[in-house]
Amino acid sequence: MDHLQLLEQINASAKFNQWAGLEVVQAEWGQVELMLRWKDELGQYSGFLHAALIGGLIDTACGFAAATVAGPKVLASNFSVNCLRPAVGEMFIARAKVVKPGKTQVFTACDLFAVKDGEEKLIANGQTILTIVS
Amino acid sequence: MDHLQLLEQINASAKFNQWAGLEVVQAEWGQVELMLRWKDELGQYSGFLHAALIGGLIDTACGFAAATVAGPKVLASNFSVNCLRPAVGEMFIARAKVVKPGKTQVFTACDLFAVKDGEEKLIANGQTILTIVS
Amino acid sequence: MDHLQLLEQINASAKFNQWAGLEVVQAEWGQVELMLRWKDELGQYSGFLHAALIGGLIDTACGFAAATVAGPKVLASNFSVNCLRPAVGEMFIARAKVVKPGKTQVFTACDLFAVKDGEEKLIANGQTILTIVS
Amino acid sequence: MDHLQLLEQINASAKFNQWAGLEVVQAEWGQVELMLRWKDELGQYSGFLHAALIGGLIDTACGFAAATVAGPKVLASNFSVNCLRPAVGEMFIARAKVVKPGKTQVFTACDLFAVKDGEEKLIANGQTILTIVS
Repeated sequence: MDHLQLLEQINASAKFNQWAGLEVVQAEWGQVELMLRWKDELGQYSGFLHAALIGGLIDTACGFAAATVAGPKVLASNFSVNCLRPAVGEMFIARAKVVKPGKTQVFTACDLFAVKDGEEKLIANGQTILTIVS
Repeated sequence: MDHLQLLEQINASAKFNQWAGLEVVQAEWGQVELMLRWKDELGQYSGFLHAALIGGLIDTACGFAAATVAGPKVLASNFSVNCLRPAVGEMFIARAKVVKPGKTQVFTACDLFAVKDGEEKLIANGQTILTIVS
Repeated sequence: MDHLQLLEQINASAKFNQWAGLEVVQAEWGQVELMLRWKDELGQYSGFLHAALIGGLIDTACGFAAATVAGPKVLASNFSVNCLRPAVGEMFIARAKVVKPGKTQVFTACDLFAVKDGEEKLIANGQTILTIVS
Repeated sequence: MDHLQLLEQINASAKFNQWAGLEVVQAEWGQVELMLRWKDELGQYSGFLHAALIGGLIDTACGFAAATVAGPKVLASNFSVNCLRPAVGEMFIARAKVVKPGKTQVFTACDLFAVKDGEEKLIANGQTILTIVS
């Protein structure tokens, strides 16, 4: 099973990911791309993408990137998110990569883009530190 | 309108909060308490509360705490979450407080508890830095 | 050897701590207090305590607190610092505590106070995630 | 006065930077490079570069990068550091860049490298959120 198939399987088993409509677009060793289409139920009070989804996309993309180098048994210790611009778009794309793989920990980083009228804009970035469960 | 009423109004206007079932339990100057009941659609692949909800609860509770001291026009610049224990429970309670109010920024912190068999356990903590929009 | 003696020994072996004048004031299971007296060489361009010292005090206090529960073989994975008020004082006191001890990781938090004219003021807070080296 | 001259002037006025031996190597709009030579007094208990210097280099490089886009009146709200590898080397190089300039805030990121036997290794990364003082 290649990276993309493994991550699609994990994604399919996460009920929240299914409800939200999260899709794994691309995956290779050390990096992944996720996609989420806008729907009203993903919004906060002013109709932007809710911080839960911003953080959830970043944390999930980072966790999936870590899984490509360390296997699926990784748990986030910490994730941190910077909200750079209003999270408005028809679609959101999270691109995560492994910054440093290790024996017990994996350091990752992620950029989150909104797509509006065919144009990508960086709206948030963040990072996750993952522990490899033995 | 008191703090609790204002926050309940904001909460009611956020579609994601309504879908998730987030409730504002308590609010006074500088601190709030939110509650979320478990349902399957809130879970990640192993059936624990999804990181999106862990981060979303912490960010929302921090934002609401900031709103009690600075008004509703606050935007998160950064939020950071530590995952301390497996997020398993029938109910989750987020208690946030303002650490430092300011003219342009508000610093906040939040503890997130899972309630299981009537017992509260600290499962995550975090913080949010909010900018006051002028 | 009790906690205070062990930490004083570690502190004495760190050349930077000796140069800066860092003192371990108090230590017990899960919490420590460090003290640093102001001197001009600790300042940034406007004469406040340099961010290096703010971060260094918080990271060291957190690491020492972790050492009281997990032994001296702990390494910081991540530390994060909020600068809440201007770091001005005759003396600085860092009070750190363990938030969650674990088998492989220790989560800690720290408040940093400036003492001026006998009065303590919270000027920064932060956290450190430490890995236990096996 | 160009970016490099301005930053060298600020650097010269910070007593801690002078004691440590921090040098501004390169500066242009949105990015800077700092350099620090190893000396024993910069070490922690096992002789690696002290976390104070790791954080201080990252925070200073981020602040200097922000100053190239927003002027010298910027103050760090938060800085966060990941310790990726042992901080051992003859020399340390911090490369920071502005991720998102704004009217009230500047988001920055920094990679920190150790140079040993002529080879650069990424030993830490981090970020700083800066507020523009009006």
